[in-house]
Amino acid sequence: MKPSTSSSPVSSPVTSPVTSPGTSSGPSPQAARPRARKGVATVCLSGMLEDKLRAAAAAGFDGVEIFENDLVVSAMSPESVGALCADLGLSVDLYQPFRDFEAVPDALHAANLRRAERKFDLMERLGADTVLVCSTLSPHATDDDGLAAGQLRALAERAAARGIRVAYEALAWGRFVNSWEHSWQIVRRGDHPNLGLCLDSFHVLSRDPAPTGIDTVDADKLFFLQLADAPRLDMDVLQWSRHHRLFPGQGSFDLPGFLAQVLAAGYEGPLSLEVFNDIFRQTDPGPAAVDGMRSLVALEEAVAGIEYEPSDGRARPRIELAAPPPAPELLGHAFVELTVDDESAPQVSGALTALGFVHTGRHRSKPVELWQQGGSNVVLNRDDRGGGSTGTDGQGAAGGVSAGAGTRTGTGRAEVVALAVESRDPEQSARRAEALLATPLPRRRGPEEAELTAVAAPDGTQLFFCPGGDASGPDWRADFVPTGTGTGTDHGTEGAVAGVLGRIDHVALAQPNDQFAGSMTFYQSVLDLRERDFAEYAAPFGLVRSRTVGNASGEVRIAMHGALLRRGGWAPSVPDPEHVAFATDDVFAAARNARGRGLEILPVTDNYYDDLDARYAPEPALLRDMRELNILYDRDEHGAFFHFCTGILGSRVFFEVVQRVGDYRGDGAVNAPVRMAAHRQARNRTD
Amino acid sequence: MKPSTSSSPVSSPVTSPVTSPGTSSGPSPQAARPRARKGVATVCLSGMLEDKLRAAAAAGFDGVEIFENDLVVSAMSPESVGALCADLGLSVDLYQPFRDFEAVPDALHAANLRRAERKFDLMERLGADTVLVCSTLSPHATDDDGLAAGQLRALAERAAARGIRVAYEALAWGRFVNSWEHSWQIVRRGDHPNLGLCLDSFHVLSRDPAPTGIDTVDADKLFFLQLADAPRLDMDVLQWSRHHRLFPGQGSFDLPGFLAQVLAAGYEGPLSLEVFNDIFRQTDPGPAAVDGMRSLVALEEAVAGIEYEPSDGRARPRIELAAPPPAPELLGHAFVELTVDDESAPQVSGALTALGFVHTGRHRSKPVELWQQGGSNVVLNRDDRGGGSTGTDGQGAAGGVSAGAGTRTGTGRAEVVALAVESRDPEQSARRAEALLATPLPRRRGPEEAELTAVAAPDGTQLFFCPGGDASGPDWRADFVPTGTGTGTDHGTEGAVAGVLGRIDHVALAQPNDQFAGSMTFYQSVLDLRERDFAEYAAPFGLVRSRTVGNASGEVRIAMHGALLRRGGWAPSVPDPEHVAFATDDVFAAARNARGRGLEILPVTDNYYDDLDARYAPEPALLRDMRELNILYDRDEHGAFFHFCTGILGSRVFFEVVQRVGDYRGDGAVNAPVRMAAHRQARNRTD
Repeated sequence: MKPSTSSSPVSSPVTSPVTSPGTSSGPSPQAARPRARKGVATVCLSGMLEDKLRAAAAAGFDGVEIFENDLVVSAMSPESVGALCADLGLSVDLYQPFRDFEAVPDALHAANLRRAERKFDLMERLGADTVLVCSTLSPHATDDDGLAAGQLRALAERAAARGIRVAYEALAWGRFVNSWEHSWQIVRRGDHPNLGLCLDSFHVLSRDPAPTGIDTVDADKLFFLQLADAPRLDMDVLQWSRHHRLFPGQGSFDLPGFLAQVLAAGYEGPLSLEVFNDIFRQTDPGPAAVDGMRSLVALEEAVAGIEYEPSDGRARPRIELAAPPPAPELLGHAFVELTVDDESAPQVSGALTALGFVHTGRHRSKPVELWQQGGSNVVLNRDDRGGGSTGTDGQGAAGGVSAGAGTRTGTGRAEVVALAVESRDPEQSARRAEALLATPLPRRRGPEEAELTAVAAPDGTQLFFCPGGDASGPDWRADFVPTGTGTGTDHGTEGAVAGVLGRIDHVALAQPNDQFAGSMTFYQSVLDLRERDFAEYAAPFGLVRSRTVGNASGEVRIAMHGALLRRGGWAPSVPDPEHVAFATDDVFAAARNARGRGLEILPVTDNYYDDLDARYAPEPALLRDMRELNILYDRDEHGAFFHFCTGILGSRVFFEVVQRVGDYRGDGAVNAPVRMAAHRQARNRTD
Repeated sequence: MKPSTSSSPVSSPVTSPVTSPGTSSGPSPQAARPRARKGVATVCLSGMLEDKLRAAAAAGFDGVEIFENDLVVSAMSPESVGALCADLGLSVDLYQPFRDFEAVPDALHAANLRRAERKFDLMERLGADTVLVCSTLSPHATDDDGLAAGQLRALAERAAARGIRVAYEALAWGRFVNSWEHSWQIVRRGDHPNLGLCLDSFHVLSRDPAPTGIDTVDADKLFFLQLADAPRLDMDVLQWSRHHRLFPGQGSFDLPGFLAQVLAAGYEGPLSLEVFNDIFRQTDPGPAAVDGMRSLVALEEAVAGIEYEPSDGRARPRIELAAPPPAPELLGHAFVELTVDDESAPQVSGALTALGFVHTGRHRSKPVELWQQGGSNVVLNRDDRGGGSTGTDGQGAAGGVSAGAGTRTGTGRAEVVALAVESRDPEQSARRAEALLATPLPRRRGPEEAELTAVAAPDGTQLFFCPGGDASGPDWRADFVPTGTGTGTDHGTEGAVAGVLGRIDHVALAQPNDQFAGSMTFYQSVLDLRERDFAEYAAPFGLVRSRTVGNASGEVRIAMHGALLRRGGWAPSVPDPEHVAFATDDVFAAARNARGRGLEILPVTDNYYDDLDARYAPEPALLRDMRELNILYDRDEHGAFFHFCTGILGSRVFFEVVQRVGDYRGDGAVNAPVRMAAHRQARNRTD
């Protein structure tokens, strides 16, 4: 590591004006403790080396691991790379990997030392003082710990002469050394001050989900820490590692528990991401680096919350971790804002009217309408600038979404542009979001308009924080002048006692292919949501995955979905539908009411009901009603789910009405292919 | 099966005028034997059910398996689906799958029989007479073969009353029944004429790469055969099956050996593809169905070549298999044709000149130039219609490439539009191609012009067959009027004794993401090539895979490459480079000659040579020469490979000069990231 650069001021993240993300607002009871430095391996990011370094710096990383191939293909000399890193405020924390070194016959050992000296030359030019040596896969190596330790000691002696440290890492698929315990035995046996351990969470946790004893390793032998998450997959571990790693919190590994152990050992080096991921490799590195940084801040927060008991009872100093302001409780969805144009507006208003909504307010200064029913609020924005008018200047896909724009076109544009949640402390919600690298959105108000705090999500959606419960703050409803048609609450219950759409159940957002994991991280960390549902299903035009995140009460739910693989020219006629789902206590009444008001409910195929009959043998009357009203059905071990949909309104929006029975957890994803096919059928009929 | 439709004339494949593909030209010594019928499961193809059925019919399939979910989401009634199949000349060979039936408690058995009766209702409406029942995964089932057999017998009795057959299949991950042998025991024990076996090559070969004894199964108990290939993957078998199946010949399974056994048992039912593949699920079903049909014809040809000895010594009748005309020997690349425009033409001619090529001929009727050196021939086509002028009317991406068009744009257009190979029998090569569903290209000739046979590859490349060796036929060179500058052969050897580019080593074609596997099948089957090299590597902008296919002599080599995942907006500046590689016996002389003639060889980074030095410790003089001349290096256990490249010429073409030492098998894929980075660097510098 390079202490000189590590203490230099980091540059601001490109998407946020905050400095030192995540640490700015945390209390610092022991100010003397060093701050946890954050790093990223260049292999995590796409592009040429300079693209990667600039993205890492812009996201606020303190240092980088230089992946060998990134340097080999670069026209920049090692000196230039080192200089660029210094200019960007990045330390070069590690050069990696150096392979197939130890436990070989003498002649090969000599050749390996020569090879190492050439890499040490390069590291000197680069300004890197630590090299990663991973456990051997060489067919020439032997299973001899003494030989391995001796040769690594010889390497460390050569390294020491250059001021370089050797960090030895057990690959999970190492030929002889594939556990961190084994690598630690060899390091101890090698017994040289310049020989230490590199721990990589993937290599450790892929073999042992709950390792113990890491906290007993000597802190001065913990040279480096690499962090990666991954889904639990039953597959060859090398392929798993090379293709499916994820940023912390995006997979299933217990990274907080792992990191707590490493910190309990006294580790004070960088927390460095090393993520091999097929999608990240080809994603714009700017937003990807921000995703990575956000995941690290969230990990630090999670670790800070663990009261760790070292297994040997010794209390060690621990580095200062990022501490974003805690997430205030969320009480529900305040409103959803859709952008509409002249062509789509009548379709959307017509559907809202038929569903029992009332146009209750007009915005004081903009072409924006408020529609209400019970506790469900929908804002329709005809602002030509394209969205985000409620309190903001409507800037679009901040945060670097590159694919979003292409999917958001179409005649009769209609799409979800903003979500608003009710928070017990909107200001703190916003501060937390900014500490987690969310882009704050500037506000533009007229007189008497509420000053709402808002940030941009990576998928371009605007996220508003409104006061909820007993929280003080401006009432966003005050932005709207009543139309005089009464409140939606009155109207909905007047028109029909049963079947009122009392609140927003969930909002479903289409995610650009490259942004799926990053959006998960964003919504989960910023809003403190947890995964509520995950589904992967075969739709008529390819595989789709969907994930729902929600708060503990289930009052806030955000569903994200997208094609598993980016599609080509052969695609559904509604490629990226988005929807707002409203909850009711009586879906059948709601459907009858809506139909009575002229709604054409999305038709569901007879084959679907025949299949439902075969599978579940429902009461004939129930099946008849479902068939008549085009109501879809799902169930899980906790309860049941009934729902119906409108057709596609404008380019890609529809509404859904849902009724949850018991504690059903999902969102009816099993029926999504039926719905998609029906939307295609209807769209092709009207086109 | 529906004998009435199975014997009806099949419709012609959409891409080819031949009828009954693959069987039209085969000898039929035992004309009484029934022809092998070919089918495809709707789950193999993307789109709505009617899209799938039309694609299957257009590709010449005789029948289909209807996958349940395809019907459930369809607005067509089962009767309408059946009628559409009949109209299209497709029999409905199977309805599938019916799950979790056998070995359950009595109450559940009764419910399962009810469920089955509902599906039998549907099958009657559909006109399907065979249902697939796959071995149970139910948590309610017990490990009791007697119970399983008894309940399946009860099901068969119900089915018999409807004229329906039950085909029982062992899923490779079945809870109790997961081998074909076990399913066969249960079927025998069930002992009902309407209870038989479904064999699926994936379920059998994923567990046992070389099964035996299938040929002893009673033919009248072999109700159905599903065919799928797959790469050998070390992963959960269900995930492997659901996502990674391939058409026959695209994976690693011994499908010919498997099919030979099944046919030796006397099976006369359809050869039906059942392929779950993430990419095929979202690919235009038209070309995908043609790929599938082509793979089946090639499989039939492979099986027909096996002299199978039944393990019990009994000779059984075997159905008549497709027999495309055998592939004539190929002697090398005749020429490669590039399309160029006003902007790119000077770049391409300049590079050819510097490489030692001479413009030796002008086409008699078109703006087309012949450039020659030794046995290397390059045709430059400035035809505005965009390619394919040599003997054809230049129609573009026949065969249904949808993504190709999008990648072939750019200012200064330059790309590979045609490959020509020398065949010992061009006419038979063309007949074989057509029997394998290649689209024949119409010819347009002037006086004295050669009538070349040509077909379109799925990637849009035109493939010409020229007479080679002692084959008689028109000489394509006669289309060109000599420029009077001598032949390239003379010129190349006059100018420099060493370093002549004596022949085309290989041609590298960029493949649209969805078409990769299909292109493999096309080139391998049509030209009778085998895989010579396979590589997957991390390029600066994402993972790339490349596959090289070649003939036994190595004189014809075609490399295909493309991004592993379809890219979004963040992409290299040269997204889909294509190149022509010329072979030389002295790459250093060739590089010096070219540089002497003014070629700017693509610069290779100093870091690359430093790394080469560290890894291989080459002779300093050799390393110095390589560094000076920008020559790249690779080696394998058979030999070594030296090569250098030009910059990108026009939109996406470059030339490469290669020298093979010993029996090196690859194409230097390990150096592709270095080359791609250098091309980006150079392109960004000049843009």
